[in-house]
Amino acid sequence: MSLPLRVKLVDVGPRDGLQNEKQMVPAAVKIELVQRLQNAGLKEIEVTSFVSPKWVPQMADASEVMRGIRRQSGVRYSVLTPNMKGFEAAIAAPRAEWPDEIVVFGAASEAFSQRNINCSIAESIERFRPVVEAARAHGIDVRGAMSCTVGCPYEGEIAPERVGMLAGLMKGIGVQRVDVADTIGVGTPRKVRRAMEATLQHYDIDHVSGHFHDTYGQALANTLASLEMGVWNFQSSVAGLGGCPYAKGATGNVASEDVVYLLDGMGIETGIDLDKLIDAGQFISDHLQRKPNSRAATAILAKRAG
Amino acid sequence: MSLPLRVKLVDVGPRDGLQNEKQMVPAAVKIELVQRLQNAGLKEIEVTSFVSPKWVPQMADASEVMRGIRRQSGVRYSVLTPNMKGFEAAIAAPRAEWPDEIVVFGAASEAFSQRNINCSIAESIERFRPVVEAARAHGIDVRGAMSCTVGCPYEGEIAPERVGMLAGLMKGIGVQRVDVADTIGVGTPRKVRRAMEATLQHYDIDHVSGHFHDTYGQALANTLASLEMGVWNFQSSVAGLGGCPYAKGATGNVASEDVVYLLDGMGIETGIDLDKLIDAGQFISDHLQRKPNSRAATAILAKRAG
Repeated sequence: MSLPLRVKLVDVGPRDGLQNEKQMVPAAVKIELVQRLQNAGLKEIEVTSFVSPKWVPQMADASEVMRGIRRQSGVRYSVLTPNMKGFEAAIAAPRAEWPDEIVVFGAASEAFSQRNINCSIAESIERFRPVVEAARAHGIDVRGAMSCTVGCPYEGEIAPERVGMLAGLMKGIGVQRVDVADTIGVGTPRKVRRAMEATLQHYDIDHVSGHFHDTYGQALANTLASLEMGVWNFQSSVAGLGGCPYAKGATGNVASEDVVYLLDGMGIETGIDLDKLIDAGQFISDHLQRKPNSRAATAILAKRAG
Repeated sequence: MSLPLRVKLVDVGPRDGLQNEKQMVPAAVKIELVQRLQNAGLKEIEVTSFVSPKWVPQMADASEVMRGIRRQSGVRYSVLTPNMKGFEAAIAAPRAEWPDEIVVFGAASEAFSQRNINCSIAESIERFRPVVEAARAHGIDVRGAMSCTVGCPYEGEIAPERVGMLAGLMKGIGVQRVDVADTIGVGTPRKVRRAMEATLQHYDIDHVSGHFHDTYGQALANTLASLEMGVWNFQSSVAGLGGCPYAKGATGNVASEDVVYLLDGMGIETGIDLDKLIDAGQFISDHLQRKPNSRAATAILAKRAG
């Protein structure tokens, strides 16, 4: 068991966290959130999504947000571009406003693929193929988000073989790294390890990341299980932004603050200042008029107030 | 890494969970909670505390509760008796109402011992000595709760050596098994492992239990780390009852529901029916007019509500 010495955390709050938010968040607030995250030491931020505003109205300001962020050297900015139209919109801006990385997303569950992106897994891969080619031709990196790698709201448990199959398809079209996402948070350490192992048949350890949801409180146990396999890339959402569309009122994305508390406590380097991260979480939570959905943030804010 | 095949969970909700509750919970409700916990399959329940009602008014009905519970064979009932007076009160009743096990509690932090039980660690051990002797003479088992084994609200981080010292003192006076408690929830896996290792110098793996708080969201990661060492006894509190006196509004005891979800998912046998456990948690939460502080319970209740 050799734990990594450092971890790279991608904060997906501005995109994955906010995308299902009912109240429209102004672009200026999203830009400020990105600013605060990079000030806290995040080295990669999932900023926005170039998708149809009909499907995701919250992301209609994608270009405005990408234009507005004040980039810092050494920080990478990623965006979702699920199809060529999205990719073309992402690179319609001057080169300085292009993302460093685009994200395509496929599911390990056929039913989820159908319901979430209206096509089969195989069709989704064919849809991504030109996007990946175009991105690589433009010098933009490509990450593949693999959803439902442990369980699916429609199909139940997902066999690791299907995760492996999806990873293989992603690899086949030139996706450079993949996220093993437990979209509905039903994963526990042994199941997550099996999904990781299936993925590691196609990608090396440096190109696989863990994306856990805390719906059932299991995200940090799954993070530990992944760390023990040598995984050192993870995704999380400041203030636990995101919720869970499949269980109303339940937690969604694991809070970045809780992950950083874990890593700090284990002496694993992240480069992130937990206090500044908590401030960033409080900033967006205040805007949304709710409390941060992070146990570490809650405890630390209580101590600050105390 | 050989994970245990089964885990024994002690639910400490009726005692540790309720003791700091401001609103007085009627004895009948406590008795019903114990009933629901044993119906859910719990094989050990920390029922109450024989302490001065001046210090802990919520536990003034200890005798009434012990008299009222309907014992099931194969279930163990433990109570806190921090001194001879408490122990004598616990055995003043007919033998059928005696606890199966008493709990004494010491701290690995000198400052915490002083502030929590008004004496030094060494003095606390001397106070427990006759209690342990009397209990053993009456055929009652003795467990030692070791608090602040990772961190202390007054002293900060606690060195593993001090945990080992406390475990050695407990062993020396005849305490049969000990809890490694992270009273303020600041533990992370490496620190918890070190506290466990220090304890395992004095007790074998079958006589050490993990007692984690979820204040910073780390309890299940710490549970996993302990499972990986072979620890198979844990304590938790239904509905996360208990809160944290050291960070107002923060989480305290890890919720039993979250622990059972983890173990179920890992295929580790507990004998506990998660749905019935969630019902027990909802029963006491309804009485306290709050929501269960368990992510698994929240998600499952949301799904039930559909």
